[in-house]
Amino acid sequence: MATTEESAPLVVIGGGVVGLAIAWRACAQGLRAVVLEAGRIAGGASHHAAGMIAPVAEVAPAEEAVLELGLRSAAMYPEFLAALAADTGGAPVGYLRCGTLMVARDADEAEALERERALRERRGLSVARLAPSEARRREPALAPTLRMALDLPDDHVIDPRALCAALASAIARRGGTVRERARATAVRGRTVRLADGSRVSAGAIVIAAGALGGALAGAGEPVPSRPVKGQIMRLHDPEGPGLLTRVIRFAPTYVVPRGDGRYVIGGTSEERGLDTSVTAGAALSLLREAAELVPGVAELVLDEFTAGIRPGTPDNLPAIGPASSEGVWWATGHYRGGVLLAPATAELLVAALCGEGDDPLLARLAPARFWSAAA
Amino acid sequence: MATTEESAPLVVIGGGVVGLAIAWRACAQGLRAVVLEAGRIAGGASHHAAGMIAPVAEVAPAEEAVLELGLRSAAMYPEFLAALAADTGGAPVGYLRCGTLMVARDADEAEALERERALRERRGLSVARLAPSEARRREPALAPTLRMALDLPDDHVIDPRALCAALASAIARRGGTVRERARATAVRGRTVRLADGSRVSAGAIVIAAGALGGALAGAGEPVPSRPVKGQIMRLHDPEGPGLLTRVIRFAPTYVVPRGDGRYVIGGTSEERGLDTSVTAGAALSLLREAAELVPGVAELVLDEFTAGIRPGTPDNLPAIGPASSEGVWWATGHYRGGVLLAPATAELLVAALCGEGDDPLLARLAPARFWSAAA
Repeated sequence: MATTEESAPLVVIGGGVVGLAIAWRACAQGLRAVVLEAGRIAGGASHHAAGMIAPVAEVAPAEEAVLELGLRSAAMYPEFLAALAADTGGAPVGYLRCGTLMVARDADEAEALERERALRERRGLSVARLAPSEARRREPALAPTLRMALDLPDDHVIDPRALCAALASAIARRGGTVRERARATAVRGRTVRLADGSRVSAGAIVIAAGALGGALAGAGEPVPSRPVKGQIMRLHDPEGPGLLTRVIRFAPTYVVPRGDGRYVIGGTSEERGLDTSVTAGAALSLLREAAELVPGVAELVLDEFTAGIRPGTPDNLPAIGPASSEGVWWATGHYRGGVLLAPATAELLVAALCGEGDDPLLARLAPARFWSAAA
Repeated sequence: MATTEESAPLVVIGGGVVGLAIAWRACAQGLRAVVLEAGRIAGGASHHAAGMIAPVAEVAPAEEAVLELGLRSAAMYPEFLAALAADTGGAPVGYLRCGTLMVARDADEAEALERERALRERRGLSVARLAPSEARRREPALAPTLRMALDLPDDHVIDPRALCAALASAIARRGGTVRERARATAVRGRTVRLADGSRVSAGAIVIAAGALGGALAGAGEPVPSRPVKGQIMRLHDPEGPGLLTRVIRFAPTYVVPRGDGRYVIGGTSEERGLDTSVTAGAALSLLREAAELVPGVAELVLDEFTAGIRPGTPDNLPAIGPASSEGVWWATGHYRGGVLLAPATAELLVAALCGEGDDPLLARLAPARFWSAAA
């Protein structure tokens, strides 16, 4: 068995959008990071994610801390991406400040949407009711049967695969390392053991391995996490861009434009273990809903139909902060929000690693809430 | 440029089900055949075909010769497959003598189906009207909304990919050769030129290259043929076999069971050139229709969603017989019926090659009908 030893100030387990963002921000602050990715960069949930930066659309009444983290992270994106562009020489990331329309098809949906509007208005979020005619003036591809729409001008999108590739390039530029096909199997103190028998010792270890990381041996008390499967489609318009310019949402389905004639239609949330098969039923419901609101969807070419696994915690809040084992940190449980929350997660965690962890949000997101509650 | 020369009594251009069946039957009669396949064996329409051996379901009022050829070919299948099993040591081909149910969802469809029944009865074909309760007793997965069904006990299925693999193995066993990645670019007299610069000379040349063969340079007068795209899905039931035991048809969609928990849902017929993309609209209509009649379809895992190109002639009849150029023969234009018609096509063409071409069907199928009509 190989027992080559490597060491680094910081080891990040998991090369998805959250782990890569943490490693990049750490490197930028002089904390050289090695990312250990079991498969390929962004091969897990980040590979399948639609890339909505949509804290306003995702508001749920009970999840105040998610909203706060989401709004903060969305607000950080422009600066985060400017710094990323500076480190990569302008690698494309598909950031579209396109806004989002939430739409209703009938009176019941319109009533529900009006409640959504009021909820957002009370919180001071940017939201406007649009008459069907106005919604269709802005997005002519919407079906005439449209009943009502909400305009969320601040909810945007990014291309998660392009973003992760840019982050990996920026990490290298900053002196860090991203190792693919490097599967961490256990943590022992401040050493990570890999499947190939090698070890990496670290000043600190961050576990950002999504649905697969919660049970990593030796990390101390585990973060309870359930795998939530999401089925999603990638399509393109042979006629080029123009069908849609904004994200269209009609819970739980959405259509995301990439701005270049490519589209994403998602997404399901299914608790079925680690199964990543795609089903006839999901294809039918995604396409039926999308084509009902945007009939032109029927003309799109289907390029991919895949499923990813997102890590959901019992309270649907991410776990960001120290593990029960000294020198080990968690950044997991981002559920459907990994892309949105990556900049804020990286900022919070890197500040904590550098001993500046006095942000009040960190207390709410502390992984210890799970094991201290049980004790 | 390589100019290696090879020669064979018979060269068949096209390694789909029709070309392979011809080559095998020729070898079995002592006429050693070389099959030149541009891509992989059964890489064209045969790769995508559902494999219905269904002349009764496919009856159309105007196409008497297609019905005659189809019934003859379906009747030949048991003996054809017994000989194939003898030559291959029993290679599996997925032949299921399962019968077919044609179903109607509402009064209009039931009325149309009753006309279909009467048409078949007049022709002496085996067909029976089933009450919804009886249809659902035989196939419990059918939706309660079923209005009426026809039982076509003689319409069966085969697995086209397995069949083609078995045919290729039988050709080798009989002394013939199947060359993959051997793209014929032109015919000059009785010599075939390949894309790699080599040539194969032959006693006779059969062009069975489907949608790509109609315009092969040097073959004399072309067989006019339009490409007809068919989009089709392959799925499986994680619970294993049992959802359906018969083919269920509800024009133009069908669900074909393979008997082992795998299913095929097809198929579209679109005239869009050689485009083989798959579209959101086709996925939606195939799945919507299938799930409406067989709700359990929603639970199936989607393994493949692909499109093939079928060659359709102006009269929707295949072209089987001599080309205008001496020593060259056509076996093309099988449209949606290549799998069904392969045994009869092989028998007719090999008999003609051996100077026994006195079957009256051959006159009706003669490629010359296209150019003599124009003259």
